[in-house]
Amino acid sequence: MTHAAAKRIDGRRPDQLRPVHITPGYLLHPEGSALIDAGDTRLLCAVTVEDRVPPFLRGTGKGWVTAEYGMLPRATPSRTPREGLDRSARGRAMEIQRLVGRALRAVVELEKLGERTFIVDCDVLQADGGTRTLAVTGAYVALSQAFNHLYRRKRLRENPFRSAVAAVSCGLVGGVPMLDLCYAEDSTADVDCNVVMTDGGEIVEVQGAAEGAPFTRRELEELLDLAENGVQELFAVQREALSAPA
Amino acid sequence: MTHAAAKRIDGRRPDQLRPVHITPGYLLHPEGSALIDAGDTRLLCAVTVEDRVPPFLRGTGKGWVTAEYGMLPRATPSRTPREGLDRSARGRAMEIQRLVGRALRAVVELEKLGERTFIVDCDVLQADGGTRTLAVTGAYVALSQAFNHLYRRKRLRENPFRSAVAAVSCGLVGGVPMLDLCYAEDSTADVDCNVVMTDGGEIVEVQGAAEGAPFTRRELEELLDLAENGVQELFAVQREALSAPA
Amino acid sequence: MTHAAAKRIDGRRPDQLRPVHITPGYLLHPEGSALIDAGDTRLLCAVTVEDRVPPFLRGTGKGWVTAEYGMLPRATPSRTPREGLDRSARGRAMEIQRLVGRALRAVVELEKLGERTFIVDCDVLQADGGTRTLAVTGAYVALSQAFNHLYRRKRLRENPFRSAVAAVSCGLVGGVPMLDLCYAEDSTADVDCNVVMTDGGEIVEVQGAAEGAPFTRRELEELLDLAENGVQELFAVQREALSAPA
Amino acid sequence: MTHAAAKRIDGRRPDQLRPVHITPGYLLHPEGSALIDAGDTRLLCAVTVEDRVPPFLRGTGKGWVTAEYGMLPRATPSRTPREGLDRSARGRAMEIQRLVGRALRAVVELEKLGERTFIVDCDVLQADGGTRTLAVTGAYVALSQAFNHLYRRKRLRENPFRSAVAAVSCGLVGGVPMLDLCYAEDSTADVDCNVVMTDGGEIVEVQGAAEGAPFTRRELEELLDLAENGVQELFAVQREALSAPA
Amino acid sequence: MTHAAAKRIDGRRPDQLRPVHITPGYLLHPEGSALIDAGDTRLLCAVTVEDRVPPFLRGTGKGWVTAEYGMLPRATPSRTPREGLDRSARGRAMEIQRLVGRALRAVVELEKLGERTFIVDCDVLQADGGTRTLAVTGAYVALSQAFNHLYRRKRLRENPFRSAVAAVSCGLVGGVPMLDLCYAEDSTADVDCNVVMTDGGEIVEVQGAAEGAPFTRRELEELLDLAENGVQELFAVQREALSAPA
Amino acid sequence: MTHAAAKRIDGRRPDQLRPVHITPGYLLHPEGSALIDAGDTRLLCAVTVEDRVPPFLRGTGKGWVTAEYGMLPRATPSRTPREGLDRSARGRAMEIQRLVGRALRAVVELEKLGERTFIVDCDVLQADGGTRTLAVTGAYVALSQAFNHLYRRKRLRENPFRSAVAAVSCGLVGGVPMLDLCYAEDSTADVDCNVVMTDGGEIVEVQGAAEGAPFTRRELEELLDLAENGVQELFAVQREALSAPA
Repeated sequence: MTHAAAKRIDGRRPDQLRPVHITPGYLLHPEGSALIDAGDTRLLCAVTVEDRVPPFLRGTGKGWVTAEYGMLPRATPSRTPREGLDRSARGRAMEIQRLVGRALRAVVELEKLGERTFIVDCDVLQADGGTRTLAVTGAYVALSQAFNHLYRRKRLRENPFRSAVAAVSCGLVGGVPMLDLCYAEDSTADVDCNVVMTDGGEIVEVQGAAEGAPFTRRELEELLDLAENGVQELFAVQREALSAPA
Repeated sequence: MTHAAAKRIDGRRPDQLRPVHITPGYLLHPEGSALIDAGDTRLLCAVTVEDRVPPFLRGTGKGWVTAEYGMLPRATPSRTPREGLDRSARGRAMEIQRLVGRALRAVVELEKLGERTFIVDCDVLQADGGTRTLAVTGAYVALSQAFNHLYRRKRLRENPFRSAVAAVSCGLVGGVPMLDLCYAEDSTADVDCNVVMTDGGEIVEVQGAAEGAPFTRRELEELLDLAENGVQELFAVQREALSAPA
Repeated sequence: MTHAAAKRIDGRRPDQLRPVHITPGYLLHPEGSALIDAGDTRLLCAVTVEDRVPPFLRGTGKGWVTAEYGMLPRATPSRTPREGLDRSARGRAMEIQRLVGRALRAVVELEKLGERTFIVDCDVLQADGGTRTLAVTGAYVALSQAFNHLYRRKRLRENPFRSAVAAVSCGLVGGVPMLDLCYAEDSTADVDCNVVMTDGGEIVEVQGAAEGAPFTRRELEELLDLAENGVQELFAVQREALSAPA
Repeated sequence: MTHAAAKRIDGRRPDQLRPVHITPGYLLHPEGSALIDAGDTRLLCAVTVEDRVPPFLRGTGKGWVTAEYGMLPRATPSRTPREGLDRSARGRAMEIQRLVGRALRAVVELEKLGERTFIVDCDVLQADGGTRTLAVTGAYVALSQAFNHLYRRKRLRENPFRSAVAAVSCGLVGGVPMLDLCYAEDSTADVDCNVVMTDGGEIVEVQGAAEGAPFTRRELEELLDLAENGVQELFAVQREALSAPA
Repeated sequence: MTHAAAKRIDGRRPDQLRPVHITPGYLLHPEGSALIDAGDTRLLCAVTVEDRVPPFLRGTGKGWVTAEYGMLPRATPSRTPREGLDRSARGRAMEIQRLVGRALRAVVELEKLGERTFIVDCDVLQADGGTRTLAVTGAYVALSQAFNHLYRRKRLRENPFRSAVAAVSCGLVGGVPMLDLCYAEDSTADVDCNVVMTDGGEIVEVQGAAEGAPFTRRELEELLDLAENGVQELFAVQREALSAPA
Repeated sequence: MTHAAAKRIDGRRPDQLRPVHITPGYLLHPEGSALIDAGDTRLLCAVTVEDRVPPFLRGTGKGWVTAEYGMLPRATPSRTPREGLDRSARGRAMEIQRLVGRALRAVVELEKLGERTFIVDCDVLQADGGTRTLAVTGAYVALSQAFNHLYRRKRLRENPFRSAVAAVSCGLVGGVPMLDLCYAEDSTADVDCNVVMTDGGEIVEVQGAAEGAPFTRRELEELLDLAENGVQELFAVQREALSAPA
């Protein structure tokens, strides 16, 4: 059996994304927001603009983009206590929000932001795998909205984005490279890989980790091929969401 | 000008609720859930069932119902930091979740739950006044779903609810008693009142507080009249939500 | 048997307060202080004046009054750990201190305070029911002392109090409306009600909650009648305490 | 001028204690309690008996005695925030409660306690120097009460105390050795010394620290002489308090 | 100029490691330990064996390997407060310790550990770049020692390691791919890459992130080539350290 | 048998120190540092200079010296969790760092520091008794280095030290006064005593506590004699360390 013919839990082809949908402007208060769904994973991104920057940027004229990541207590099959996350859960959340922040900053010209901080809150309403990559993909749309919001008010003079950014997960499941793992696939994957790319085809971040056995460079190449195709579709969904009338 | 003719910010009559809508079963994982909207306030309720009870109930055969209340960082016009809520914000959240827990327990026969705890997470996605009363109203629907879920699996033998429960806010705004205050009204109200009632017409909880000047017992009576009518509409919306096929 | 003839645990009539005593100026350091006893409940109130206000009042010329509530570890029959209060105990403390702060602010003209914050610490030395209402009643005396202290030093130009404020608990115990519940009564009450009033006979806050079964509006009326009479006695005790030479 | 003739702030002789008074059984709920005053310092000690011991004593048949120390926010001239004690304040409190625990354990035969823990809460209502030594002196009385309480109920078979224990501060102030420093003296002392002794005349603990310049062994001797006399008076006050009918 | 000829801050060739040295058994108490230096970075690894496993492994007969990562306050050019790490510093530490734990588990057969947890503490005494990869490399040596320690006491029956594991950093600095970045290089790198490999030549983890501009797949390949050679040297240093008499 | 002939666990005479060694300048980044060993106890001291002082010193022209004390998780025979130290462990650490700070301040003229804070981090790499006294002894060397560092850069105009300071432990073990207790001795000692002295022969701090039975003033004298001799050796080791070329 070839990889392309492998059966997946939910009937998808190995190289197939789950249906993705983005609702821009889902929230009333934030300067930009987006609700993003991929299969059963649902995430809310909200952008807050603050007129100050972290200490190391004060007086430089540059701005900053940062992200925070959270999960509602019952986004998951079993409930996560609201307070007193254990070390491992807190560590995971911090790891993810650092990834989202880096991904956005890699495609933003900080000089064009003015001395402002853009905080992107990514909150998972429902989790079924891929929340960290979906957070990157949705955050880009919410942040675009916020940039437009400021541009229309003449508080930004040009678009700070160098390019679009999106992310997708992939992995080796039962020896087969698969795109956009749902939770059931992710939890049995031998290798788990998250790839953040620009719409210019360049890599912003690669995180590939052996969950079971180590992997070869050739397997890494196959995963990167899958991801490269997957993000193209995500850029199309982002563009469509952003072209809708505000 | 009579009270009935007073103009409100959003064009409502003084005794008029905002449009309320409840989506039961909004989430995949919880045993019961509901998304509830009233005007621009939107809240997600999710029920988790755990097979244990707090220490003081162990061995009694009784169960417990409790609630937790949270807000996404950007549910509000300005962002609330995710960590390090100040005393006042934490105090407010605890006050609310205690109210929701008491309201539900007042209409549940704990003996019929078995030694189980039902945790109702109420998370505000968007806030525009009335989140605590909306939390009670939505939590009833989510908890009903969870009871049905267990009943169908023969883990409950009868309906633990004695009656339905719903809540509504009211207040004196510019001297006029008004029902279901939005945030702009709430922040200028002289008296703020939250009323929790059963569909049998009895009171579960009254909280009436002078924000500005103290009030008379007669004014309290007028507010209770308003609330009594308001909750009737909410019971209708709850019934409709729960009659929809699961 | 009529209500008026019902027997109480400690021999009181249903409409009778426990003996109340206030010692103003109990402490050396604070600008105002009072030790207040009602039966076996004993509470220490201490006022601190700080020359700054919360951010939202800066530059307005107005002051602020706030309260904090605590309990010594062994104020209660079983010991409460000093650190690591559980959620429920912290929630209760915050709820109470918010109530005390609101009650005081409702009778104070903040414009007359100057840009100062008055912090009223209410610490329970011994608990036997009614600590939250006793905190309001004692805090009024301690705050009066602090106002006098500043007035004598010409730091206040007029009395900031609009009226006196006091509070009392009442409840339905075994179907009988009773005033000023001790712990043993409170823990078996069907309805628990706390009423804060001014000496002008107006309501500052009503909190009535069904602990067991819901209650009718008529029962609420009976409880308010009891409370209205009870606070009159408390105003007399406050006046006597404040008329003593400093 | 000889040391004996030196003038003190409050008119005492250098070798004179402040008036000390102990009210045993001040509280209703604890197994033992005492209110202790020395000049303007006032402290409440309360003993809780728990039927369990720390892990390292389980199964040994021995008991444990431990202490906790706190201060009401306004026990001091300026207010100490209730939460978020700074490092230094927390460090001081821990240091003191460790001292009190060691002092009590040094005169208690743990084998005679059974597998029980005696927690002595020492809470300062008003501070004017000497709180840590007063805590030891008062804690002994409260713990005696608790032992008597258990003995009368036949839960202890013999008196666990080997001897009485009391403590006093002393110091070099302006070159003069002085006993029982009040806050004003303590804050200008060159050397600050706390001495815990048994009524058998033996030392349980000595803590002598140079606040300003280092000191000689001869000066240390003079301070120990002062303390040795001072504690004798405290033992008399303890005995009197404990001889009062319960 | 070709890459191979590029000058580095400390005179190294682009593909050259800093001098690495490992002192196994540096500490007295732990079951295994190692002090590892690379240039000016110095790290202490210590292994603790506990006879229990996390809940999800209880009763499976499998063991667990986990890591914790810390830094002494003055391991860095400016001091890091001991308490109250900011979010970003805590996030970084958690990210690193999760990486170290995954790297070790990827080469350990958990079935061969028995129901034991091996905790590897990695503490940075002095930091000059590369602490996370050095932690992996040193942790392998300390864990090997601990395995040997248990094996000699017949508590392990066979070597749980499937292969050795080591890690190295690399990056694009001024457009040049460089191996084992020191802090000065790391802070100006365009791309920062950490690679964990087995001595069988397989990849355990790749983390490549654009700090400045995104990068191409070809650049990623060049970095992986560098890393692949670099880890070979580290395996030699590990083997030498472990061959020394205990 | 006379005391002088008593056998010790490690073969030392009762009045004999363990071998002590100090490596000044062990770390690259701090303004001053020292690694100090006594027997199997090993501790790292690092000085950080900050150009600000605590609030109570602002504007006085005086500086401050403070210390912090920590232990690596596996400095001890069993591992101490990195987070969530229990009360007792935190209390002990705070007690020690307060001692180290006081000891250093007692020999420093704060007026000569300028408005700077010198933070001395003392971190135990390996513990076998005597960490608190070793911390004082090592901290003096690290702080001397930092003073020299600033003096050479003309940021200090004269040596702020009034004298050298060192500390040593002693105790009664099996009735015999012994110097510099190792952990095995310390844990069975009846009396435990820590003495901080200047090289002028004066006492900076004495802490003597009965672990088992109380002790006499004569026994205290014998312990102070031992300590007085012991610190002389430590001053010699300090001088040698500081005379080495930087």
